[in-house]
Amino acid sequence: MSITASAPPAPSGPVSPRHGALRPLGLAEVRITGGLWGGLQELNARAIIDHCLGWMERIGWIANFDRIAGTADGEHAGIEFVDSEVYKLLEAMAWELGRRDDPALAERYDALVARVAAAQDADGYINTSFGHPGQRARYSDLEWGHELYCAGHLLQAAVARLRTGHDDELPAIARRVADHLWEAFGPDGRDAICGHAEIEVALAEFSRATGEPRHLELARLFVERRGHRTLATTLFQGSDYFQDDVPVRDAEVLRGHAVRALYLSAGALDVADETGDDELASAVEAQYRRSIERRSYLTGGVGSHHQNEEFGEDYELPADRAYAETCAAIGSVMVAWRLLLRTGDAGYADQLERTLLNAVLVSPRHDGRAFYYANTLHQRVRTHPNADDELSERAEASMRAPWFEVSCCPTNVARTLASLAGYVATTDGAALQLHQFVTGEVRVQLDAGALAVRVETAYPHDGRVRVTVLEAPDAEVGIALRVPGWADGATFTAAGATAPASPGYATARRVFAPGEQLELVLPLEPRLTAPDPRVDAVRGQLAVERGPLVLALEDVDLPDGVDVEHVELDEAAPVIATADGAEVALRVRTDADLPLAPADGIRARLRPYKDWANRGPSTMRVWIPTVR
Amino acid sequence: MSITASAPPAPSGPVSPRHGALRPLGLAEVRITGGLWGGLQELNARAIIDHCLGWMERIGWIANFDRIAGTADGEHAGIEFVDSEVYKLLEAMAWELGRRDDPALAERYDALVARVAAAQDADGYINTSFGHPGQRARYSDLEWGHELYCAGHLLQAAVARLRTGHDDELPAIARRVADHLWEAFGPDGRDAICGHAEIEVALAEFSRATGEPRHLELARLFVERRGHRTLATTLFQGSDYFQDDVPVRDAEVLRGHAVRALYLSAGALDVADETGDDELASAVEAQYRRSIERRSYLTGGVGSHHQNEEFGEDYELPADRAYAETCAAIGSVMVAWRLLLRTGDAGYADQLERTLLNAVLVSPRHDGRAFYYANTLHQRVRTHPNADDELSERAEASMRAPWFEVSCCPTNVARTLASLAGYVATTDGAALQLHQFVTGEVRVQLDAGALAVRVETAYPHDGRVRVTVLEAPDAEVGIALRVPGWADGATFTAAGATAPASPGYATARRVFAPGEQLELVLPLEPRLTAPDPRVDAVRGQLAVERGPLVLALEDVDLPDGVDVEHVELDEAAPVIATADGAEVALRVRTDADLPLAPADGIRARLRPYKDWANRGPSTMRVWIPTVR
Repeated sequence: MSITASAPPAPSGPVSPRHGALRPLGLAEVRITGGLWGGLQELNARAIIDHCLGWMERIGWIANFDRIAGTADGEHAGIEFVDSEVYKLLEAMAWELGRRDDPALAERYDALVARVAAAQDADGYINTSFGHPGQRARYSDLEWGHELYCAGHLLQAAVARLRTGHDDELPAIARRVADHLWEAFGPDGRDAICGHAEIEVALAEFSRATGEPRHLELARLFVERRGHRTLATTLFQGSDYFQDDVPVRDAEVLRGHAVRALYLSAGALDVADETGDDELASAVEAQYRRSIERRSYLTGGVGSHHQNEEFGEDYELPADRAYAETCAAIGSVMVAWRLLLRTGDAGYADQLERTLLNAVLVSPRHDGRAFYYANTLHQRVRTHPNADDELSERAEASMRAPWFEVSCCPTNVARTLASLAGYVATTDGAALQLHQFVTGEVRVQLDAGALAVRVETAYPHDGRVRVTVLEAPDAEVGIALRVPGWADGATFTAAGATAPASPGYATARRVFAPGEQLELVLPLEPRLTAPDPRVDAVRGQLAVERGPLVLALEDVDLPDGVDVEHVELDEAAPVIATADGAEVALRVRTDADLPLAPADGIRARLRPYKDWANRGPSTMRVWIPTVR
Repeated sequence: MSITASAPPAPSGPVSPRHGALRPLGLAEVRITGGLWGGLQELNARAIIDHCLGWMERIGWIANFDRIAGTADGEHAGIEFVDSEVYKLLEAMAWELGRRDDPALAERYDALVARVAAAQDADGYINTSFGHPGQRARYSDLEWGHELYCAGHLLQAAVARLRTGHDDELPAIARRVADHLWEAFGPDGRDAICGHAEIEVALAEFSRATGEPRHLELARLFVERRGHRTLATTLFQGSDYFQDDVPVRDAEVLRGHAVRALYLSAGALDVADETGDDELASAVEAQYRRSIERRSYLTGGVGSHHQNEEFGEDYELPADRAYAETCAAIGSVMVAWRLLLRTGDAGYADQLERTLLNAVLVSPRHDGRAFYYANTLHQRVRTHPNADDELSERAEASMRAPWFEVSCCPTNVARTLASLAGYVATTDGAALQLHQFVTGEVRVQLDAGALAVRVETAYPHDGRVRVTVLEAPDAEVGIALRVPGWADGATFTAAGATAPASPGYATARRVFAPGEQLELVLPLEPRLTAPDPRVDAVRGQLAVERGPLVLALEDVDLPDGVDVEHVELDEAAPVIATADGAEVALRVRTDADLPLAPADGIRARLRPYKDWANRGPSTMRVWIPTVR
């Protein structure tokens, strides 16, 4: 297939496809000024980025670069691939600087980039764990060394810098890395792949950002090389763990290590988009659809096995043993967004919202200084979180921790929150599509001219979304708002007329006048959700959802001495909406050995799953039994 | 505490406590001649032992000893601890030779012992992976090297040889090993433990078999040293994995790696018995009781996590993700038997039977040439077993395999089946207790004189157990038969009088005359079993049991095109006993996309879980849904 250079694009967001139904709007076009998403951006700017920088400075992960540069002594700190955390933080800082001016942050960013730059070898290779005196040779452990994985995250940090309008030192470092990779793994280089997919999506995106076709070709080669069992397996990790069992275009479902599988899917979609490879794109889309249908949790979380952080078999989704890694949820957001851009199918925006608001947002503690790595849907015993200065050895579903020996999640949350504005809106030239409901302003250049709107909403706590036109071309254009699949009874008001709005998109097409208002009203009554009968793990149980939020029951919301294991949901009783969730009626289990008489019923408040364990240790259930 | 030498005991079985309520009868006292257990002994003699010997010869695990002896070249074959499989096979062969004369087997046994002997170092150390030129130093990796674990299995092989009346070369090798261990790890040696418990039970039993108190003291030291976090942890294995988080006597529940936990429990019980340490014994008993109550499957299987082959939290027992390693079930049999001997509580005999007949016997294929390593209770997709000459890389719950890279289970099954007679009967001096119902003869020396009985039964397929007195003292003695906890409506006939028999033991005390008969009749009507409501994974589902056997539904017993996932159990319809299981009524799920009309019901046969997947690949359920 032919690969041609594209002109470097205008500043945009985390993904910038060449084709596809919709063009995503970037951080320059979408400004989030408040509400849930605005608060998350502020939390990230105020706490999470500092937290990540502070930890990695304190435990020597940043100093690893100084050691290579010869400006610091000592042993390499952390496992082989901690460089990637520094790069993900640089990506987060770049997006953050694209969102707002912050001279202090810019200074810290430049200083960090300079320390990374000093560790780059003359030929472009950069890694603090391999290829230097006393270290293992470059690319001597492709299965587990993560060298290409780390390089990929460096390229993505450079993409963020380029997409926010700066072609400076980090992109220069990244160009040298990409040139080195072309030499080492290109058509005349080594025919090999990395154990952890990431370089594929990074190279494809970097090619989009630079216009350099060799980067895309190398991404394509890495995608095509996978699936031929070239990676050595172990007693515990087979070829499927690496997605090396079947070529991407031949696979039928996502399998193996969930983060690897989703990063690979994102990379394959980007390569397919740039090369016009519809077969590849359609294969990945089918794999993702089937996996979401059969291998994802109500929260959008994926990867049910703790063992190998892998996808389970179809319908193997235990609530109490849900691994549902935060990074896998972020990978799912990446793939859902790409498929939305490719197809314009609102279902992908629904899945993105479900996953982001539940499976991703549950990770950071409200103060932004501790994170879930794995995300259970059922916590039976109270556990105590790590101390704020305690490094967590392992990912535990049962508690948030300030930092981990493998700390992929905090920096992944940081880069995601800093680029949130990139997942809100798109255009097809004729119309503006608002996929996510955030308070802020959107300015877009349509074929007919510039369109600017203000969006005001307290969503997801209130279902009213008001759009005020600030500027519009003197011609008919469209403004479309997504109507989620769960929104039964939504209404859309345009030009003073209110009409029912069914799931998909509610669109107004007209010559808009400044000051004109549109309003979407989404019903936020709590709803009981029954599980798929093929998921045995939650049979005879119900969950409660409110709008896009999955709700959860915590023992701290139950009377003293009553635990989440002692109660059953009275499904016949009314479920009442509360400010942040719902109130339900619970039966006390007759076999629960409690002071209460078995006949006693309880009314209890369910709160958003994403907020659980923010009021001290608790036991928790998303799925509540209705039968023995 | 004082430790004194005991006289070498008469030939006996796999466990020979000093104190306790009951003395176990050995292979010389219990002869199994037919029925289910007799058939298993024959399968082991005819196929399994040969299979293990053939595989380990073919893939060079036995040749590892020749390499150390300098009589063979090449690299060490297999992972570090494959010596232990050779030792477990030697244990199996020793028990088998104690059960019956077999000159050909004796010749192969002697030849194998000679090859092992040639690999022993002058100071008694023996291991084919450590301590020799080109290998890592002795005891340089106590966490993962398994050197003491291997030594333990060698000692247990020697115990089997001593208990079957031969004090020859293997016991001599073992004495040198034990003396070396005393030097290396005794009071004047290194204060350390092995990552995988096993040496504790082995040393305690070896001390019983030899009368050497130092072996017991070293066992005691190893038990007491564990639980103080001296073993290095990893990113994935914490101190609890090794049971090194809490001292044995202070722990409240079994946790971490299930096989390790149960071998340690057996060792702690043996040490407690020999040293009169009731506190330690009571602690282990309480841990086991709580673990069986909250952390074991209906089959008796334990260790629900694939991750680290670990125990799950209380009630964390997914059927579709059950690991339930065969070796863990064997460890549970070891502990249950010891607690039965200590307490005389029939509940432990019930648990032993449940575990042996379901969680252990499911492992070997009917031809004895393939084995389950992990034992799921729910198989959603058909998978194909490994070819008979194919080494399996990993333990998979979904298929039996002829051999594994870590092949602990086949040799563990072999040594267990060869010593089955050691788990049948006991005496307290005044009476004979028959805990398991097997066809055969039992001869025991009671305080009042010799008692011999013949037992005839087709149990567990028929509930009638007839005991005929062959020889009896001219004084009152007792003959007790266990009445299982599930046996509601059992009857016991003695001296011509039939009376109801309640769970526990039905005992006849009298002056028995040769030819006199006793008969126990156990009801074997199939029964519906509801899960503990705290086990979410099987909520809204029922299992069917018949006597001691857990039954299972396989798709091969359903009409073409109907899968186990398409049906629900009609609990209102009668459950009818069949020759080997039960027949039940099933509803076809209305959402199952099938040619049958949803109204169509199906009657299907459930067969013993232990026999599943012996008729080709199949999907299977133990727990069958009754609700959506």
